Amino acid sequence: MSSDRSELPPEPDLLLITNALSVICGKWRLYIILLLNEQTLRYSQLSDLLPEVSEKVLASELKALVSLGIMKREAYAEIPPRVEYSLTPQGRMALPILRQIQLIGQLIQ
Amino acid sequence: MSSDRSELPPEPDLLLITNALSVICGKWRLYIILLLNEQTLRYSQLSDLLPEVSEKVLASELKALVSLGIMKREAYAEIPPRVEYSLTPQGRMALPILRQIQLIGQLIQ
Repeated sequence: MSSDRSELPPEPDLLLITNALSVICGKWRLYIILLLNEQTLRYSQLSDLLPEVSEKVLASELKALVSLGIMKREAYAEIPPRVEYSLTPQGRMALPILRQIQLIGQLIQ
Repeated sequence: MSSDRSELPPEPDLLLITNALSVICGKWRLYIILLLNEQTLRYSQLSDLLPEVSEKVLASELKALVSLGIMKREAYAEIPPRVEYSLTPQGRMALPILRQIQLIGQLIQ
């Protein structure tokens, strides 16, 4: 993480934690980010990769991740319309830490 | 993180993510872990450090973190009884990643 603001606060910072949890928490949110990874995928491709996730849940998770600035959504005026998702620069910067969160899951298995 | 099992899975692993989220998610859980950090603190000290958190919530969060294997609780048969909390070895191993999660909060400020 190279941004100059990437210094850890000396004391735990509840605002930063709350912000981070909005990206991470929720049954599917982190999984969707890690699934997309550094690819650009269409909505239909994401949907195919997530058969257990309803259209409604997937759409709302993607909408939330776009509004958080982690993902970007690009729509192409084609017939049929094409909509693609990819990580924003912030999303890519967060990716190494987001991947490592899985190691915490290993520790408590 | 030095354990030999600390390899990241090639593909996102929903079970590992779900396990990890049980440690991280919840308004106060990660904040409590980072506040305790590498110290050993009495329940009363933790409670004093968390004036915004009710006794009920603090007790249930500590109980959950102990059952997850992230924290350990030691009670001393003294009068008045002394109860102390500290991170387990797993909790200490998770600490560097748990701290870094705050950087994600910086990215979306």
